[in-house]
Amino acid sequence: MSTLRYDVSLKDWIIFAPDRARRPHHNKHLSAPCVLGKEPFCPFCPGNERFTPQEIFSMPDGPAGGWSVRVIPNKYPALRVEKDPGRVVQGGLFREMAGCGAHEVIIESPEHTMFLGHQPTAQIERVLRMVQLRMNDLMQDTRLQAVILFKNHGEKAGTSLAHPHWQVIATPVVPHLLRLKHTVATEYFDTTGRCLYCVLLEQELADRVRVLTTNDRYAAVLPYASRAPFETWILPRRHESSFGRVPGGDLWPLAELLKEVLSRLHAGLDNPDFNLVINTVARGDEGKRYFLWHVQIVPRLATPAGFEMGSGMSINTVLPEEGAKFLRDVNLEAASSHPTEV
Amino acid sequence: MSTLRYDVSLKDWIIFAPDRARRPHHNKHLSAPCVLGKEPFCPFCPGNERFTPQEIFSMPDGPAGGWSVRVIPNKYPALRVEKDPGRVVQGGLFREMAGCGAHEVIIESPEHTMFLGHQPTAQIERVLRMVQLRMNDLMQDTRLQAVILFKNHGEKAGTSLAHPHWQVIATPVVPHLLRLKHTVATEYFDTTGRCLYCVLLEQELADRVRVLTTNDRYAAVLPYASRAPFETWILPRRHESSFGRVPGGDLWPLAELLKEVLSRLHAGLDNPDFNLVINTVARGDEGKRYFLWHVQIVPRLATPAGFEMGSGMSINTVLPEEGAKFLRDVNLEAASSHPTEV
Repeated sequence: MSTLRYDVSLKDWIIFAPDRARRPHHNKHLSAPCVLGKEPFCPFCPGNERFTPQEIFSMPDGPAGGWSVRVIPNKYPALRVEKDPGRVVQGGLFREMAGCGAHEVIIESPEHTMFLGHQPTAQIERVLRMVQLRMNDLMQDTRLQAVILFKNHGEKAGTSLAHPHWQVIATPVVPHLLRLKHTVATEYFDTTGRCLYCVLLEQELADRVRVLTTNDRYAAVLPYASRAPFETWILPRRHESSFGRVPGGDLWPLAELLKEVLSRLHAGLDNPDFNLVINTVARGDEGKRYFLWHVQIVPRLATPAGFEMGSGMSINTVLPEEGAKFLRDVNLEAASSHPTEV
Repeated sequence: MSTLRYDVSLKDWIIFAPDRARRPHHNKHLSAPCVLGKEPFCPFCPGNERFTPQEIFSMPDGPAGGWSVRVIPNKYPALRVEKDPGRVVQGGLFREMAGCGAHEVIIESPEHTMFLGHQPTAQIERVLRMVQLRMNDLMQDTRLQAVILFKNHGEKAGTSLAHPHWQVIATPVVPHLLRLKHTVATEYFDTTGRCLYCVLLEQELADRVRVLTTNDRYAAVLPYASRAPFETWILPRRHESSFGRVPGGDLWPLAELLKEVLSRLHAGLDNPDFNLVINTVARGDEGKRYFLWHVQIVPRLATPAGFEMGSGMSINTVLPEEGAKFLRDVNLEAASSHPTEV
C-alpha cells in the first residue's frame, strides 16, 4: 500500500511504496546487478503468462499465433487505481494522500533479447500504438492528472527485468517538473504567441549541427543545452501538445525515426544503458498551443553525484554538436551484422 | 575549457566541460568500475603531493609532521576561476557564458582507506573547518554566485578516486534548484514570519519518530517527505542561513553528530555508497531569515530511472520513520570492531 507525501520545501509529492522493497535492512540488495539475458526464468516470455498479474490488453500477430505486445499491471506497483486520492493533513506542514494511480508494464515483444532498435518498424509502431492506447485509456479516469511513459534499458538505467518492456505510471497529482516546463512555455507563449519548443526545433533545424536525422514528420536532435552526453530528442514537426492525440498515421514515421536513433546509439556507443521518456502535457492541457510532446532519450554514461544533487545543474562532457556528428558518422550497415544482440 | 549554456525550457544553466572526458566514442569507459582501495598509485596519498596541481591550502598536525587536510584544484575542473562570466547570445534562444567558477578537492585525511565516520571527531572537525574556509574564501570573488559543497562516497555515488575527499564547486550563476528552494521558503516567511526549515525541524522534534539523534546544537532527522531510503538531514537548532557563518565553536558538535550519523549508516547498511551535500544560501542571502543551512546525506541504494527523469518525482521504498527506527537500533559498539574499513 503506497502513499504520497508533500515536500513543502520543493512543492512536490514523493511516492512512498514500501511494497516495492524488502524490509529496510535488506534494501541494499535491491541494487544488486541484474545479469541481462541470463535469467533462468522470465515471466515476460511467451508460455509464462500465468506467472504475471491478470493481462490488461494484448495485440495479436506474434510468432506462432501468439501476442506481439502485451500489457500487464506492475507486480510491485508504485501506485494503484483502487484508492481515493483525497489529501489528508497529518498536522502542521505534513500532508499526505493515498497512492491512487496506475503502474503498468508493456512487454514490447515476445523476444527476450531483441533490442527495440533492431525490431522491424512494424513492431516498433505496434509498441508506440500500445503506449498511446494505454495513456488514453488511463486518462479516462479523471482522478489521474498525468501519465509518465518511459522505457529503461540496462542496469544503470534502473532495469530490474531484462526482457524488453516499457512502463506507464499515472499519477494523481501533476508533478512539479511538468508544472515548471509548462509554466515556462506558457510565459513564452504569452510573450511571443508561439510554442517555445517549436521555435527551439526551428533553430536547431536552421543551425543543422545538432540534427541527427529527420523525416517528413519528425526531427531527431541533440539539444543545444542537453543535460547528458548524447541526449537525443525526437520532436514532431507539426505542433501537437499531447502524445495521446498523435494521428495513427504519424506513428509509423515515428517508429522509423526511433529505430534509426536507437540503432545509431547502440552501434556508436556499444549498446549503452539509457532511459527513454515520452514528454507530454498533463490533464486539461491537451489542446494548448504552448507545449510540444517529444521523445527524450538519455544514455546513462555518467553518474550524477553530489554536485548535481546539491545544485540541480548538470555537467555534460560532450558538446551536442560533437555528439551529433559522431552519431551521424556511425555506419549502420556495418553494425547490422549482429542485429539481435541486447 | 568549459562553457555554460542556458536551457530556456527549464530556466537553468548546463555546464559543458569536454575536458572532463575523453573523446565521444571513449566516453562510455568513464563509468567503468573503480575498485576502491586497490589503486596501484594514489595522487592523494602523502608523498605523492607533486603529482597533484599546486596546493591551495593545507592544515598541519598530520602523522609524522605532515598535513592533516589538504586542498588542491581539481585536475579536470568543471569550471575555472580565470574566465569572464559575461553572457553571450548565440542567436535566437541560444545563450552561453564562459565556464567561470572554481572546482577544488579537499583531501580529508592522509589515510587512503579511513572512512570519515570512523575518523576521530577532531579530524572531522578539521575537515568541516576547511570546507567552511574554502567556501568563504571563494565567495570573496564577487563573480561567483553560489558554492556547492559535497562529498561522494563509493562508485554508485560517482566517486572516481577512492581516497576520501570532498569537493567544492563555485558557480557564476545561482542554480535553479537553489532559487526554487529559496523562493518557496521566502513565500512561507512572507506569509508566516517564520523560517520554513526551522518550523519543519520543530515538527520533526515534536513527532520524534523520524529523529535519529540530537545534541545541544544539532538534530539529525530522516525528513517526513524524504526522496530516498535513509536520506538523513543534520539541521542546526539555532537559525543560520549560511554555513559560512557558523561560529567556529559550533563545528565540533556538528562533527560529533556527523560522526554518529555516518557510523550508523555504515554499520546498518553495510557501508552504502552515498552523496553528502551542505545546503546553504547563494550570495547576498547570508543574512536572511528564511533558509536554514543543513547537511543532506543520501545513500545511493536505488537507481533513479525513466519515471524520475520524466516526472522529477521520487519513489521511496522506505518510510523515514521506519528508516530512523532501524538506524537508531544499530549497535555501534558491536560495529566498531572493524573501524577502518572503507
